[in-house]
Amino acid sequence: MTRRAEILIIGNEILSGKVADEHSGFLSREFRALGVDLRRVVVLPDEVEAIGEAVREAWQRSDLIVTTGGVGPTHDDVTIAGIAHGLGRAVVRHPELEALVKEVYGEHPPSALARLAEIPEGATLLSAAGLRVPVVVVEKLYVFPGVPEVFRRKFNAIKSRFLDTPFYMKKIYLAVGEEPIASILYEVMAKFPAILLGSYPTFTQAEYRVVLTLESKAASYLEAAHADLVARLPQDAIVRRDEDAAPSSSEMRADGVPPG
Amino acid sequence: MTRRAEILIIGNEILSGKVADEHSGFLSREFRALGVDLRRVVVLPDEVEAIGEAVREAWQRSDLIVTTGGVGPTHDDVTIAGIAHGLGRAVVRHPELEALVKEVYGEHPPSALARLAEIPEGATLLSAAGLRVPVVVVEKLYVFPGVPEVFRRKFNAIKSRFLDTPFYMKKIYLAVGEEPIASILYEVMAKFPAILLGSYPTFTQAEYRVVLTLESKAASYLEAAHADLVARLPQDAIVRRDEDAAPSSSEMRADGVPPG
Repeated sequence: MTRRAEILIIGNEILSGKVADEHSGFLSREFRALGVDLRRVVVLPDEVEAIGEAVREAWQRSDLIVTTGGVGPTHDDVTIAGIAHGLGRAVVRHPELEALVKEVYGEHPPSALARLAEIPEGATLLSAAGLRVPVVVVEKLYVFPGVPEVFRRKFNAIKSRFLDTPFYMKKIYLAVGEEPIASILYEVMAKFPAILLGSYPTFTQAEYRVVLTLESKAASYLEAAHADLVARLPQDAIVRRDEDAAPSSSEMRADGVPPG
Repeated sequence: MTRRAEILIIGNEILSGKVADEHSGFLSREFRALGVDLRRVVVLPDEVEAIGEAVREAWQRSDLIVTTGGVGPTHDDVTIAGIAHGLGRAVVRHPELEALVKEVYGEHPPSALARLAEIPEGATLLSAAGLRVPVVVVEKLYVFPGVPEVFRRKFNAIKSRFLDTPFYMKKIYLAVGEEPIASILYEVMAKFPAILLGSYPTFTQAEYRVVLTLESKAASYLEAAHADLVARLPQDAIVRRDEDAAPSSSEMRADGVPPG
């Protein structure tokens, strides 16, 4: 059973357009390469109520939740409080984090800094090679910082634990728009209801007008759906086929253009 | 009363990392410049149930909802059905859109194309100069396509109707980290609870280590909070102040670096 994941991006700076969200793009590609099924991304303000509500909802829907942002010492860092609120847990201090804070800031750190040792009750610490500060984990929920460099370093250090069976993908580039093929795609979906079939029009390419993507975790099912689709399509409309049933991780631009 | 907005980005291609989401960054900056308070962004799969649930939740929380994606003729275009499901409305055909479809595809378009005329019952069409196809509006919810060029053209054509009183912003660049100023920020928030005060650490700048942003729709309140904060900060830590209490729309990179 493929793990269903949800990402909660926490930060007023993203909602107000001051800072570009780098996390959701990075994580969506990482999760795909890991074989994790990302089901939802939610960008939230630095507010305990809003974070709590989103955590509660994600908890019901998902097997894996990642939060980014809101874990520093300042007033706008309320992610731990939000998670605790959403799960009906108390906020407590973790002795190992307390020791780390004292190591860095001295025996009696100011109260604002003492918050750096706070966790939702029952959370555990996940250590990994190369990490000075461990990752706070609340069962299936992983708490990451918002600063991109730090976030990526921490995610990369522990991501192997999320590894699942891979997705396989095939692409078909078409010289026609979506209109003449729409009913064909319905037919294929009726025959292969479990295939992930995407249709992406573009208006900026000379060579093709639509990219079709087929994906599945079962290589033979993908093969069969792909063959069925290719046979139904008008043959002169097919510009190119990417036949590599390799784990999918390549990024297309928003207009359907593959990189490079 | 400032309008509270929510964005629903619909598309498996974004969740699976194949296509980068260009919409939320664009819209967060546009809404900020318009004076609209963006409260949440949700990225959703092409599924009627998931879209319906998100629409229902957003409807309760927000005064303005924008959806992008999922409005073409193919099987994965289920945004209209999702909105209708979420609001407990039927899907019906709009005579004006039916006429447009017939104009383009002939008197008897295939059933897949007839879906291009579908709307949630009670929706209206919003026309604007330069738009060949009007925007579907369900009360406070606006339906936009996912192809970036088309989405932006349509949004720009109607965005003046979202115009609200502007946010004003001031920035302070600090040579120190967050630790020595965290308690000062709490004090300012206690005195000016309505100020939007952000604290953004960066580890990639030689000149400064933290950017503070203060924002408000009330210029005099911003002025007072800013003066209070500046007086409390260690003076030798202040590298630079951006004093322009101008409507805020400038983008910083995720590491707190302003552009240019």
